[in-house]
Formats: sequence, C-alpha cells, structure tokens
Amino acid sequence: MAVYTTVDDTALNRFLTAYDIGEVLSFAGIAEGVENSNYLLRSTKAHFILTLYEKRVDAEDLPFFIELMTHLSAAGMNCPLPVAARDGQILHELAGRPCALFSFLDGTFSRFPNRAKCRALGASLAELHVKSQGVSRHRANALGPASWTPLLQSIGTDANILAEGMHATITTRLEQILQEWPTDLPHGIIHADLFPNNVLFVGDKLTGLIDFYFACEDILAYDIGICLNSWCFEADGSFNMTKSRALIRGYESVRRLSATEKQAIPVLAAGSAMRFFLTRLYDWAHTPKDALVSPKDPMEYWAILRFHQSVSGVSAYGLDLSSPNGEIQ
Amino acid sequence: MAVYTTVDDTALNRFLTAYDIGEVLSFAGIAEGVENSNYLLRSTKAHFILTLYEKRVDAEDLPFFIELMTHLSAAGMNCPLPVAARDGQILHELAGRPCALFSFLDGTFSRFPNRAKCRALGASLAELHVKSQGVSRHRANALGPASWTPLLQSIGTDANILAEGMHATITTRLEQILQEWPTDLPHGIIHADLFPNNVLFVGDKLTGLIDFYFACEDILAYDIGICLNSWCFEADGSFNMTKSRALIRGYESVRRLSATEKQAIPVLAAGSAMRFFLTRLYDWAHTPKDALVSPKDPMEYWAILRFHQSVSGVSAYGLDLSSPNGEIQ
Repeated sequence: MAVYTTVDDTALNRFLTAYDIGEVLSFAGIAEGVENSNYLLRSTKAHFILTLYEKRVDAEDLPFFIELMTHLSAAGMNCPLPVAARDGQILHELAGRPCALFSFLDGTFSRFPNRAKCRALGASLAELHVKSQGVSRHRANALGPASWTPLLQSIGTDANILAEGMHATITTRLEQILQEWPTDLPHGIIHADLFPNNVLFVGDKLTGLIDFYFACEDILAYDIGICLNSWCFEADGSFNMTKSRALIRGYESVRRLSATEKQAIPVLAAGSAMRFFLTRLYDWAHTPKDALVSPKDPMEYWAILRFHQSVSGVSAYGLDLSSPNGEIQ
Repeated sequence: MAVYTTVDDTALNRFLTAYDIGEVLSFAGIAEGVENSNYLLRSTKAHFILTLYEKRVDAEDLPFFIELMTHLSAAGMNCPLPVAARDGQILHELAGRPCALFSFLDGTFSRFPNRAKCRALGASLAELHVKSQGVSRHRANALGPASWTPLLQSIGTDANILAEGMHATITTRLEQILQEWPTDLPHGIIHADLFPNNVLFVGDKLTGLIDFYFACEDILAYDIGICLNSWCFEADGSFNMTKSRALIRGYESVRRLSATEKQAIPVLAAGSAMRFFLTRLYDWAHTPKDALVSPKDPMEYWAILRFHQSVSGVSAYGLDLSSPNGEIQ
C-alpha cells in the first residue's frame, strides 16, 4: 500500500497536455496496489486512474495487459478501460516510469464477500475466460506450477522458520500436487489474482474487476481454484461450501465446466494454495524484521492447502458431478 | 504519506449508517497527510474526505479544529466543512480512532506556486485571520517560540551531524531571534502550516485551504512568515521577491498590516524558519537510517533562516513602509 513515485503538478500538467480529458479538478495518490503507484485523477470530463508501473512489473508485459483490458472493456466487461492520448497511444512515460491512464470504476471491495457476491464473482470470472478469447498477445504464467519447485529451492531451509521439518513437508506436498497436476484441461487467459480486493461492488452488484497485472495463460479452472481460496474461507479458517457452490454456479451460468475440469478442482485449488503459500513464505523469509510493511502470514495458505488435500471429492465444494448442471448425467 | 489505519467494508458500512450521505460508490485511502489517515469517499450524494486521527494528534484539540473549520466554512471560506451525522455530532469513532467526515474540495496543489497563486494565498491567509475571530475555543501554539529552546536542548549535540559546531551556531542564532521577538503584535488564530501542499487550486483560482491540525493562537504576521518561507523560495534556494510582494499585497487586500507588523516580518520569518529547521532536525536525528520514509532535509530551512537574518530591512520582501499601502506615509 504505497505511492512509490511522486508526480508533481508541473509534471502532471505537462503530461496531460497529450490527452483530451479537460481540466484537472483533483489528483491524489491512493494507497492501493503493492506493485505500482496509482493516482486518482478527476477532471472536468471524468474520473480516471493514472498508473505508474514500478520495477516489479516487466515493461515488456505491458502491451499484453493493455490489450487484455481494452479487449474486455470492448466486450462489455466492467474493467478499467485504457485511455488513449491524442496520439492514439495508451502507454506513455511520466516521472521516469511507464504509465497509462484508465477509466475509473465505481465500487468498493468486501473483505468477506457474501454468497451473492461470490455468485457474481463466479459469473464475471467465466465471462473473463470467455471474452478474453481473441486477445492476440501472449503471456506465460511466470508463477505457474513449473516455477514452484525452483521457488521452494530458493527458500531452502529458511522454510523451517515456520516449523521444524517444514521444508521436507512442503517438498512432499508439492511433489504430490505436481504428480496429480492435470495436463488436458482447457487453457486460456486467466486473471490469476482475483482476490476480493480486486473486485468492486456497489451493494451486491459487481461493478469492476481490477489489477490485471498477473493475468497470463494457464488452465482456466485454475483461476476458480484461486478464487475458491480467496473468497470462500472465513476469517476463522473454515471453508464455506455455500459460498463455494454459489461461486461455481455463477461461473457455470456463463461457461459450463466439463466433468474433467470439475474433478480437477481439488488439485487445482491445492496448487493455487501452494503458489500463494510459497510466494508469501519467500516474502516472509526475505523481509527485514523491522520493516514498516509486514508480509502476509504464509500459514493462512498452508491451512487452505491442507484442506484441499484432505477432501474426499468435489462434493466438498458443493459440486455434484451427477447434477443436471454437470456433463455426466 | 500513508494510511495508518485500515477500514474494511463492514466497519465502513456500519459507520455510515449514522450519516445521511446516500450509498457508497468508492472508497480509497489516499497517500496524503503525515499525521492522520485520510480516505476519499464518494457517495451517490457527494465527495467526502474521511479522516481518522492518529496518535500524533491530541484528541483534546479536535473540538477546536472542528469548530474552526465549521466557522470558516460558514463564513464562506474554501475549507473542509465538517459533516455532522444524523445525531448532530461531528466527531465519531471508527476502527478505534476518533474520526470525522468532511466535504471534499476540488483542486490540486502546486509545488512551486506562481505569482498569481501567491497573491491568492496571501488574500486567503488574511481572510482566515479575519474570519476566525469569533471562534470560542482556544489552542496555544505548542510549537511556538517558547518551545524552541527546549526542542534544541532535546536535540543536543546530535545537531553536529549537520556540521561541526552546529549546535553552538544554532544556539546563537536562536538567542538572537528570541531577543528580537515582538511582543506587541496582533494575535489571533493562525493556520501555522500553510505550505503549498495545503492549498488547492484549479488553474490559478484558489479552491481550498486544508490540514488545519497545527492551527493555534499566535502572532498573525507570524503566519505570513511561514508562508513567505514555503511559497517564495525557488528550487535553487533563491528568494523570489516578486512572489513575496504578491503574497503580501494579496494579504493586505483583505487585512492591512500595521507598520510595526511589517517591520517585524524579518524576525518572524526567521523564527518560522527556525521552528521548521528544528522540527526537521529532530526528525532527521531520530529517524533510523534504513527507514522507508526519509525525513526532510533540515538544511533547506537553515538556508532560509540565514537569508532572513541577512536582510537589511523589509524592502527585501518587496515591502515599502512609505508606500500608499503602508501605515506610515
């Protein structure tokens, strides 16, 4: 939560002469996003978000993200619309950083979304998977399953700060996930980070999906695993099957899942838990003890991982392969 | 620049049931203000700023600040208007902090304001001095001249991190200021922190004065000294007399300065420079070397202090005691 790059009024006004957005009425750095600097900009014409891309985002990936958001907006999805300057270009530079201007989306996020929101999220996730077909650029998942073993190796025995023998336990569980990892499921563009803080609502109406900077190509149903983990566990760590069912029903109201996809949900969700567990553990081990920003506790995702590896089948998620909604009938 | 206290959607929605402001459309922590947490809140009715008061603000001072802003707004000044809840109260509590909701003011601040803005600032400063008469509550200047000697003592020889013998040099200069400090000038409520980042403009039109949390009772013309220091020095450290003249002319277009007040400008400005020099030096000496937020360089204000102690008279500020605008004619 920070603004890393400061933009003063002189630089801003010079920058905005390239755009046809009217006169600036307000401009404030907002404390959202851990990767980039974001400013809320209001002009006589509209509200915008100005994003300055910081070092953690690879500039070579920016055209993919911009094309994806432009494509999804054009297809009617509630996501930030990249705004072109008078020269027709979207990506520019400001204060030494690549940057882009986006339409502002109404809405606030819910820390613990209710069932109606889970259903709406599921439907929007499926819409994203369907409507992103036709995007011409490509981006591999840099944090996909192939990266997990090297990531665990780079953490090494630092993993034992969590508990004695933890490195060995993680290794075993990771091997199990990778052995079971499906290879024949539908691929496409996934959001890959659709946590509740990246989804905006007014009341229970979903008004925006934001922060596409982890979007990449991978197994579509893996994105469901990411959402199950971040939307369907309660504050006390318990799994809310009612929310899970609502999320998947919402998804299937837009895109039907095959029986093979459904059967893969436990391992995909476990893999997603492993991915966030490992990146959090890496940050945990690499953040100085006296840092102002505390890293997120990796153990939250370890508990989620254990849940998925303990379930006996897809019924635990409120899924029924023999239901009229499934493909096996 | 930070949001210290996080407000989640559940807490926010519960809090806002006490207000009649319509439905929330957006809510974002903004990276402004070093003392408090500020959120930009947009509802179906209006834009607001929600301020959560952090530990650095004394809760006992809040009624004074609220009364001052309410009073100035009622008198037609562009300052945040405290918004009462349905119970008629302005101060409430949220996330364990005292808080208040304010009207949002359009405008952006200029890092290096031009002459027209300096003139507008001067006029608004005088308006603040005149229109704050009638505020019933009181607040002494905790960072006034009586505090400077104890503050320097608490810094002690840490001052020598700036240069060898610096503690002795500061002591001498401080004694000189305190000896010359005027005792017979008009007092009243001053803003005491009206730096460019606390004044908003749309184009050259002044649209808002913000951040009243240093406001207190002191010599009115001391506030001019604070503004001369923060508005009229250029990036290279040079003093811009054209801006200074514009600022004071703007001030006098609303409130005339007596000859005694004008003659005191050099020492008042030097005192103001000493106050900001000392608080910056204190922060400089007390901030860990590896802190994420770098303290402001105290030497900027040392150079300003030396300027004021070197001038031969008020003509250096573009003031002419014998002009038709002065009281001595």
